[in-house]
Amino acid sequence: MTVTEYRLEVRITPREGLLDPEGKAVEHALQALSFEGVQGVSVGRLIRLRLAADDEGDARRKGDEMCRKLLANPVTEDYAIALEEA
Amino acid sequence: MTVTEYRLEVRITPREGLLDPEGKAVEHALQALSFEGVQGVSVGRLIRLRLAADDEGDARRKGDEMCRKLLANPVTEDYAIALEEA
Amino acid sequence: MTVTEYRLEVRITPREGLLDPEGKAVEHALQALSFEGVQGVSVGRLIRLRLAADDEGDARRKGDEMCRKLLANPVTEDYAIALEEA
Amino acid sequence: MTVTEYRLEVRITPREGLLDPEGKAVEHALQALSFEGVQGVSVGRLIRLRLAADDEGDARRKGDEMCRKLLANPVTEDYAIALEEA
Repeated sequence: MTVTEYRLEVRITPREGLLDPEGKAVEHALQALSFEGVQGVSVGRLIRLRLAADDEGDARRKGDEMCRKLLANPVTEDYAIALEEA
Repeated sequence: MTVTEYRLEVRITPREGLLDPEGKAVEHALQALSFEGVQGVSVGRLIRLRLAADDEGDARRKGDEMCRKLLANPVTEDYAIALEEA
Repeated sequence: MTVTEYRLEVRITPREGLLDPEGKAVEHALQALSFEGVQGVSVGRLIRLRLAADDEGDARRKGDEMCRKLLANPVTEDYAIALEEA
Repeated sequence: MTVTEYRLEVRITPREGLLDPEGKAVEHALQALSFEGVQGVSVGRLIRLRLAADDEGDARRKGDEMCRKLLANPVTEDYAIALEEA
């Protein structure tokens, strides 16, 4: 079976409603620098990788498993996966 | 003048060619968990915020200025801004 | 009154018993690199700063307030402050 | 040979003189929250782990190797290792 290479971009974000000290720090910092009208700042992680998979469904399943097993904290974070052929 | 609220999503990524120990750690961890065919892992930050601005151009200029003054390290990181009306 | 400058070192650590995906990633990565006999890896933050204060007690109170208001997540993280005169 | 368990605490800090956007963000945020007399903020990482080793010298050598191979960015970060018997 042919194996295709995919690029995955995983966005990991603090779950809404939970505390996000890093986001709060950035929000206050922007205020201190006189950026006005900024609110709702959140700081998450952006993980990019290349992955060999049978097809798009397979790539998505593997990405999903990586997030659940390692990349994201299931208690405090949400994740979303975007993928395309490399 | 009317002020519009925009959502900005800022992707901050380690500049290609520079060392990225976090990316390397995640890549090795995925191998240790038997995820095969993974390479080129990079770990960056994903910052989301809402911003009041005159128009889309104004929102982009402000986002750009935030990145240069505070959010990204101009020596080691690249950034990209996506925006939409809130 | 004389004001003294202090150096503060704040250790912020994931609360024991909670999930720590970054710690897990580093632990797996060390295994993948053939470091044996490693366990219990946790990844926290280390914040250093200089602070003007009336005396050591005042410096500690201010450091404590910074942690509770901004630096640490009171739900998921613990912190400890070490200080010395600069 | 008897193997002993050690606790290692690794402090990883941005190299002095290099840019530290996270430290700058925290410094501005503290100012926005009216903490006065704060300067020189840096944000690093604090990694704790337990490690089986022959003796203290062996534990230190292994910790050092972990830092050079995975934990710290040799171009932009410094590290220091503290250890004790578990």
